[in-house]
Amino acid sequence: MHRDRCLALDADDPLRAFRSEFVLPEGIIYLVGNSLGALPRGTAERVRRTVEDEWGRQLVGAWNHAGWYEQPLTLGDRLAPLIGAGPGQVVVGNTTSIVIYQAVAAALRLRPERRVIVSDVRNFPTDHYMVEGLAGLHGGYEVRDLAAGRFDDAAVVLLSEVDYRTGARHDVPAVTAEVQAAGALMVWDVCHSVGAMEVDVSAADFAVGCTYKYLCGGPGAPAFLYVNPRHHASAENVLPGWHGHAAPFAFEAGYRPAADIRRFVVSTPHVLSMAGLDAALDLWDRVPLDLVRAKSMALTSLFIELVGDALELASPREAAARGSQVSYRHPEGYRIMRALIDRGVHGDFRAPDLLRFGFAPLYIGYADVHDAAATLLEVLEKELWRDEKYSQRLAVT
Amino acid sequence: MHRDRCLALDADDPLRAFRSEFVLPEGIIYLVGNSLGALPRGTAERVRRTVEDEWGRQLVGAWNHAGWYEQPLTLGDRLAPLIGAGPGQVVVGNTTSIVIYQAVAAALRLRPERRVIVSDVRNFPTDHYMVEGLAGLHGGYEVRDLAAGRFDDAAVVLLSEVDYRTGARHDVPAVTAEVQAAGALMVWDVCHSVGAMEVDVSAADFAVGCTYKYLCGGPGAPAFLYVNPRHHASAENVLPGWHGHAAPFAFEAGYRPAADIRRFVVSTPHVLSMAGLDAALDLWDRVPLDLVRAKSMALTSLFIELVGDALELASPREAAARGSQVSYRHPEGYRIMRALIDRGVHGDFRAPDLLRFGFAPLYIGYADVHDAAATLLEVLEKELWRDEKYSQRLAVT
Repeated sequence: MHRDRCLALDADDPLRAFRSEFVLPEGIIYLVGNSLGALPRGTAERVRRTVEDEWGRQLVGAWNHAGWYEQPLTLGDRLAPLIGAGPGQVVVGNTTSIVIYQAVAAALRLRPERRVIVSDVRNFPTDHYMVEGLAGLHGGYEVRDLAAGRFDDAAVVLLSEVDYRTGARHDVPAVTAEVQAAGALMVWDVCHSVGAMEVDVSAADFAVGCTYKYLCGGPGAPAFLYVNPRHHASAENVLPGWHGHAAPFAFEAGYRPAADIRRFVVSTPHVLSMAGLDAALDLWDRVPLDLVRAKSMALTSLFIELVGDALELASPREAAARGSQVSYRHPEGYRIMRALIDRGVHGDFRAPDLLRFGFAPLYIGYADVHDAAATLLEVLEKELWRDEKYSQRLAVT
Repeated sequence: MHRDRCLALDADDPLRAFRSEFVLPEGIIYLVGNSLGALPRGTAERVRRTVEDEWGRQLVGAWNHAGWYEQPLTLGDRLAPLIGAGPGQVVVGNTTSIVIYQAVAAALRLRPERRVIVSDVRNFPTDHYMVEGLAGLHGGYEVRDLAAGRFDDAAVVLLSEVDYRTGARHDVPAVTAEVQAAGALMVWDVCHSVGAMEVDVSAADFAVGCTYKYLCGGPGAPAFLYVNPRHHASAENVLPGWHGHAAPFAFEAGYRPAADIRRFVVSTPHVLSMAGLDAALDLWDRVPLDLVRAKSMALTSLFIELVGDALELASPREAAARGSQVSYRHPEGYRIMRALIDRGVHGDFRAPDLLRFGFAPLYIGYADVHDAAATLLEVLEKELWRDEKYSQRLAVT
């Protein structure tokens, strides 16, 4: 596709105005938004306000007056529409690993008669590690890989909607229905889908995700936990900190969980990190997710088309079956990515051979995709073709 | 004591210069630094730098170039001298509740033959709740109150160095020695002592604390976890997130803990909140803790002397036996505190009857103590004395 055509697509892009709401360094094409999203223009002022006006002037009074205490719930309510959830169903805070622990542990206690946890060994490692840790802590649990394809004796199934390496996407409604029909509870990790498409975890039992990738909440922005309302009264928070207590400021000797989603709050929220997420949600309040998904599919399809057969595609070729990233495999992947970054195209490399390119529809355009693909092809031709060793490898693949 | 004498003490105060390094709102005396420390003047710029220069310009590269990835360890090393620890012994991150969970769970697994956890029902509730949660999760554990005074069958003892209500201070070396002589492991919570005195947990097995009280790291600033080096190779992190893995970026299918303190890191640090702590540590790098403790004892003793018998003291009268707060009990405590705050003296009230006043030696001076005590006496006289109901109560006490 000619670059002029890409510029025309950018000019017609209904999401185009969002690009100006991000700080994007000059001279680079940033295709790592699937790892750390770019900085929204409103964030610096929002964080400054929290530091100087709220903390600095209101001091401890800001826990009430600036709404800090309620943030795990108020930000949860604002985030809920991005995952198909309603108000009072999502809490924000801690890290993805920790909310995975809360979700899976709660699920195990809701299915005490079953002793199998189904996980995906190809999932992002922390998901699998936390499951292994929980299984080890309890004892007597089998951690079974998804590949075994058996749920009928499972207590819980933990899967990522979009695979962090290949971008392959699960069919959330179908898998959820299958898992639940087998009597197991479904926990979705939507780290790699939220903010890139219309996510809907409303049928799931639990869902978790981070807010620093497509959502652009900032480095280490708080994670979130969705709990289906049917479990609010019965699911246990195995990290029963005081903020999940029914009456936290009564300082009672014994733990009594709040009756609603608040029982999954653990303790004092990381307020400065919350401010970053708050600023990002000011953007997301206005984003039409259907347009995001449509543009995401168009951008990734265009990249795949332009790169063609020059590299081995590791992502699904069908747009509906992928998230907003495109991955390739190449034995010289590390060297290729270094050369790309030297030329201002930023993707990332995962050992041993994976090149990943993330396309955040709010700030990446069609011309960016064109230029990134052209640069990739140039790197492959100029950097590697002349290399005898590479030529030989290329010849055999 | 005459106010002029207090002004003279302030003029001679070797810590006096630190007061100008804090943002303190005009017209108030802030005695809630034991709950949320004041804002250091350097923090706003440090946080701005993280948002605009690091995240905004370096994007995902800042994980390496700006040192984000290493912050749990680098900030841990900077914090270590404040608790008597050495480099490579402290990790920073998450919340106090969560690091309590890590510490107590690790201790339980180091003493598998013992099934008793000793806790203090008067401790800050979250400590006790997390212990109860762990005991419930494992099953078969007895949670025994400290008052029973028996450690010889305990796996672990969790105590706070300074009581959050009364400010009463444990003798850390003596209790640690007694607990360990009984074969139990000692976990100290130093939330209410770190930054107010020379803390030394080096003989303990684990220690935890927060950084938003006397340390002034900001609202919800990350917690810390000290692990005695003798446990580094054997203690388990029951929250085995990917950042505690021996090779986190190898994305291995199975969890292999790092050989050192890093195994207690869980996952992605809350970078904006870390920036607030980083700025606070720029101050603490220069603070002589012996002078902090000396001034803390002088300030709290002066307040107790000035208030005299007008209220029932809930804190130890002997300075060495308390932290940096003074508490009083009064049935009309809530009303008294409201009247004080209306007059610009900020303490806090804990139901049913506790008034707490925290004295942060870096930014509270002797004249502040004088004025706060004078205002308190004025409130008691003018607001309550005329109240028939109060007069009767006062008459009987």
